[in-house]
Amino acid sequence: MATKPRINKLVVIGVGLIGGSFALALKKARMVRQVVGVGRSRKNLKDALRLGVIDKAETDAAHAVAGADLVLVGAPVGQMPGIFARIAPFLSPHTVVTDAGSTKQDVIKSARKHLGAHFPMFVPAHPIAGTEHSGAAAAFPELFRDRNLILLPQKETKAAAVRLVRSAWAACGANIVKLEAEEHDEIFGAVSHLPHVVAFALVNLLGQRRDAKRLLGFSGGGLRDTVRIAGSSPEMWRDICVANRGALVPLLDGYISELEAARASLAAGDGDALESMFLAAQQARARWLVKRK
Amino acid sequence: MATKPRINKLVVIGVGLIGGSFALALKKARMVRQVVGVGRSRKNLKDALRLGVIDKAETDAAHAVAGADLVLVGAPVGQMPGIFARIAPFLSPHTVVTDAGSTKQDVIKSARKHLGAHFPMFVPAHPIAGTEHSGAAAAFPELFRDRNLILLPQKETKAAAVRLVRSAWAACGANIVKLEAEEHDEIFGAVSHLPHVVAFALVNLLGQRRDAKRLLGFSGGGLRDTVRIAGSSPEMWRDICVANRGALVPLLDGYISELEAARASLAAGDGDALESMFLAAQQARARWLVKRK
Repeated sequence: MATKPRINKLVVIGVGLIGGSFALALKKARMVRQVVGVGRSRKNLKDALRLGVIDKAETDAAHAVAGADLVLVGAPVGQMPGIFARIAPFLSPHTVVTDAGSTKQDVIKSARKHLGAHFPMFVPAHPIAGTEHSGAAAAFPELFRDRNLILLPQKETKAAAVRLVRSAWAACGANIVKLEAEEHDEIFGAVSHLPHVVAFALVNLLGQRRDAKRLLGFSGGGLRDTVRIAGSSPEMWRDICVANRGALVPLLDGYISELEAARASLAAGDGDALESMFLAAQQARARWLVKRK
Repeated sequence: MATKPRINKLVVIGVGLIGGSFALALKKARMVRQVVGVGRSRKNLKDALRLGVIDKAETDAAHAVAGADLVLVGAPVGQMPGIFARIAPFLSPHTVVTDAGSTKQDVIKSARKHLGAHFPMFVPAHPIAGTEHSGAAAAFPELFRDRNLILLPQKETKAAAVRLVRSAWAACGANIVKLEAEEHDEIFGAVSHLPHVVAFALVNLLGQRRDAKRLLGFSGGGLRDTVRIAGSSPEMWRDICVANRGALVPLLDGYISELEAARASLAAGDGDALESMFLAAQQARARWLVKRK
């Protein structure tokens, strides 16, 4: 077994569900000595300090990163260009930078541009975990256990930097999987970003109605589960959707076509066509669940 | 407290999740002496006998209903006209008939037509409960506890028939709520039928892809919950959607418009518009969850 590397100073920029859980998991694994948290919300940083997620709070990322061994950028992807630009001049040569962004082509492009000479020390990553809750108070150390961690080292990325990031996520209990950025964005556009838009749009439709209160009072577990992810952070998902719109717009077009086909079958009272579609869906779901066991 | 009425013979036509759980709940409440199950699938009836859901299995509904105190029609709504027509000549004058259909205007219309002189003994009802599983083996007596039971007595319905059906569902632990059929179909079109189409369409879109297996292998809890109800019976949901297409088609149009608005914001890179929509959805969901506590 490889020796567990010691991280003397971890800086988490964006101490939310993901960044906070990463800090807690590394603390639990005794892999980190000090965690410095950087964030925009004083209240959230206070929560993070109080709950032992971080040991020190900072508001300026540039100041915080001095002498860090590892920097995790856990902020919404729309803020990453600004963060990379701000910290780049203050990074020590040995500092490894990684991120937890849900989109990868845009983050890599922006890191390449703004980290400049430090880009070989940047290891793009994406933990496939989350809940509909946000903020440091929602963080817990088991969030990544048995979940996939997508690692996307680039041709310039230093092997030692990849090793540190890989071992940190392995200590969180994650399974490391490598993907190309383009394939990553297409896959997660389909299995994550599209379902979020689907759920947000459904709640929005119902919530706008004058009779929304009465209507939703009659809903059951079906609607509740279908729209659980519509509890997710609007800002975070705005950034993800805009960043990955190249993949998401065609996926949304495909989904609208699927609904239009169902609408046409319904309007024509064509039960056979509707049943074929429902059956294909039910079977695809069953195959998928079997595969996941 | 009212005396618990004794049902000597309960006939359940369609021994699935709903019909089976109704039988088990009434047995547990010691409100029923004998349960006769009627169904199309020999295997399902065998399961129901083996699991003690029913005491006797029949394949012919007309034969089964002789001398029954209560008949619950728990079959998919598309089969109800045929069932009502088949049993009508064989019902004893005292036999109360009820149903568990998810759509009500069509079921009431068909009962009025096919039950004829027996229609005043028919009590339309809809238990708001279910899981994504089907069949007698999925039944359990607690399914209806603290769930709404929508009761829709018509102007002709006999008070004694309403009392029996009301007390049976109360014995299952359900909260009895009265609604008009038209309002019922609009409400459940919005909070139940539309979400099912949304979920079926999403799985179908992903499941059709060549890379479906790889794609779905990367999915997480978000997609899993969003499409849980796509595991539901295709036949049952075909019938519900076709029966309630009057309410469902305009709802689906509204939903498609909502998605087209999101698509337009995305294509234009308009993050503000997208965030407003996500935020409105998140807030509507939060108000709804608070209300349900």
